Amino acid sequence: MSHITTVQNWLATNNLDIAYVSDWKNIEYFTGFSSDPVERVLALFIFPDQDPFIFAPALEVGSVKQAGWQYPVYGYLDHEDPFALIKQHINDRKNNPTQWAIEKGSLTVERYEAVRHQFPQAEFAGDLTPVIQQEKLLKTPDEIQKLIVAGQYADKAFTVGFNALAQNMSEQDVAAEIDYAMRKQGIMHMSFDTIVQSGANAADPHGAPKTDLIQPNALTLFDLGVVYQGYISDASRTVAFGEIDDKQKDIYNVCLEAQLTAQAKAKPGMTAAELDQIARDVISKAGYGEYFIHRLGHGMGQSEHEFPSIMEGNNMELQPGMCFSIEPGIYIPGFAGVRIEDCVHVTETGVEPFTHTSKELRVIPLR
Amino acid sequence: MSHITTVQNWLATNNLDIAYVSDWKNIEYFTGFSSDPVERVLALFIFPDQDPFIFAPALEVGSVKQAGWQYPVYGYLDHEDPFALIKQHINDRKNNPTQWAIEKGSLTVERYEAVRHQFPQAEFAGDLTPVIQQEKLLKTPDEIQKLIVAGQYADKAFTVGFNALAQNMSEQDVAAEIDYAMRKQGIMHMSFDTIVQSGANAADPHGAPKTDLIQPNALTLFDLGVVYQGYISDASRTVAFGEIDDKQKDIYNVCLEAQLTAQAKAKPGMTAAELDQIARDVISKAGYGEYFIHRLGHGMGQSEHEFPSIMEGNNMELQPGMCFSIEPGIYIPGFAGVRIEDCVHVTETGVEPFTHTSKELRVIPLR
Repeated sequence: MSHITTVQNWLATNNLDIAYVSDWKNIEYFTGFSSDPVERVLALFIFPDQDPFIFAPALEVGSVKQAGWQYPVYGYLDHEDPFALIKQHINDRKNNPTQWAIEKGSLTVERYEAVRHQFPQAEFAGDLTPVIQQEKLLKTPDEIQKLIVAGQYADKAFTVGFNALAQNMSEQDVAAEIDYAMRKQGIMHMSFDTIVQSGANAADPHGAPKTDLIQPNALTLFDLGVVYQGYISDASRTVAFGEIDDKQKDIYNVCLEAQLTAQAKAKPGMTAAELDQIARDVISKAGYGEYFIHRLGHGMGQSEHEFPSIMEGNNMELQPGMCFSIEPGIYIPGFAGVRIEDCVHVTETGVEPFTHTSKELRVIPLR
Repeated sequence: MSHITTVQNWLATNNLDIAYVSDWKNIEYFTGFSSDPVERVLALFIFPDQDPFIFAPALEVGSVKQAGWQYPVYGYLDHEDPFALIKQHINDRKNNPTQWAIEKGSLTVERYEAVRHQFPQAEFAGDLTPVIQQEKLLKTPDEIQKLIVAGQYADKAFTVGFNALAQNMSEQDVAAEIDYAMRKQGIMHMSFDTIVQSGANAADPHGAPKTDLIQPNALTLFDLGVVYQGYISDASRTVAFGEIDDKQKDIYNVCLEAQLTAQAKAKPGMTAAELDQIARDVISKAGYGEYFIHRLGHGMGQSEHEFPSIMEGNNMELQPGMCFSIEPGIYIPGFAGVRIEDCVHVTETGVEPFTHTSKELRVIPLR
């Protein structure tokens, strides 16, 4: 409820009458109720000085209450006009509100027009998207706890993946073993499609596992995470399968130094850009700067698409409660790729990682 | 390209200057290029009398060309303003177009405002959402072929699921076995979260697999499908695990009769509502009408959220090339649930299913 209070205060301060939260992940964030309504309408309405309410497909009303929602929830049937009903419920609280805040980053034009149709005097004076992004930026202790557990599962997933490496296995096979083991442990969804890339395939940081066999005597890159109670993990490790040559060892060691240095130096008050630069300097000084082709990290929590972005130009100062990845990478086309990643949360004095699988070079004997 | 021609003709007929396709699944439909850009901008612009172009994140430009796109593709870097660049590329073809068509069902308000900012004279006179829905309604032979292959994988998945049923397995365990086996056969994504529901759990048509053990001497419901080359399968079977009582046999047989009757009678010229009624009559006459609590079927193709909806009130006439599910269900709270589903495509004379796993009651001995 404290997140809703923040929005209520923001509405009051900005003389806004009503906030329409439309993104289902954000409704989960504010209410604890989690459901992707696909084409149906699911909405949360927040007022500066009245109780909020949820509007949902009729079939979901019971689940909203079961999720612990203490305020009203109203349902609609498929043949009913949802926005006509929404208008009634709103007008019961505040007659024809004119100053609206919407989520411009996710609300569709179709629903925007549906609101305008019901409330012709509406002015869309507020954008909730940056407000919610800001509110999500600092995680609560309860959220941190879920991220810690999600990280523990990621550590288990690495063990599964390392154990599955074999010359008769494809990248896709190894990824399938990881996902299967997580499912057997009760994880319903991975954070994103599990990445296993071997040899030169790992040089594409946007690639996916292929049907290619795991290459012997080469580096293999893993990037994975799970969803636990609506919160994710996301971590990368790169291991040697068999003997690797000196150049592969070198890019591994440089990437590791960049990761360890950044993670050791990260602390409140430093800017995101400064942290990116720390890792980038290590890699550039070793001569691989041109092969580190992405930002150092991204914010995370309910997804890997949150703030802060750890990159050049972002002068946002790190604060306790922020959560993000530290993931330098070196990608040499046609040869090999290394990425080493922990996600961390900022503490009063530094950062604490959610994953603890060793980052020292692990050599897995051929088999 | 024929799909693009349809949009070009529609633009010309309606005196529109430009169409902005923003939904990445629709961009895949028109261009063959498949990528979810998440927060980045991916767009397809179509003109009545000029070549179309794709605008994409710079990292994706190579993949667009590899996908066989014959027209221009322009990239942008993260620090660039995508809509300022889009404006230049559009103005190279048609200076300051005023009559726009957008996808109102998926375009966000943020991007709608970005277009308005670059083109202050823009009028949003056309809605592409229903145009694309209509274009997708009738599948081409190439699309039907992909749906057939996707159906073949669903049949394989049922075999895996039936073989996995055992008293020491939970619903989630069985679902995990199915997904794992599909992954090992090269399927990267299921169409939706695989459903396995046993005993009374199957009475919730919106439920998910639980950690409950598969119930002996009860019906178990499977609902599953795979994504194959961007097209899905979706099918349901209900089987007996051990001996089931007469009431379970009865609801199974009634549901089966409803499914078989509807599938046998479906043909071009019949309305969607008439087809729904055929199945509903069978179930109602047997006294279970109140337990068939959803429409008979939904359209499908790239997803299970397409047209036509097979339900009361939809007077759309079935035509060759339409694809949809025929999935009657009987759900008795606290007792059991049955659903039997094939997806079909309409032919000149009737319908042809994509899945062929037997629908006769299958009894799997306890183990």
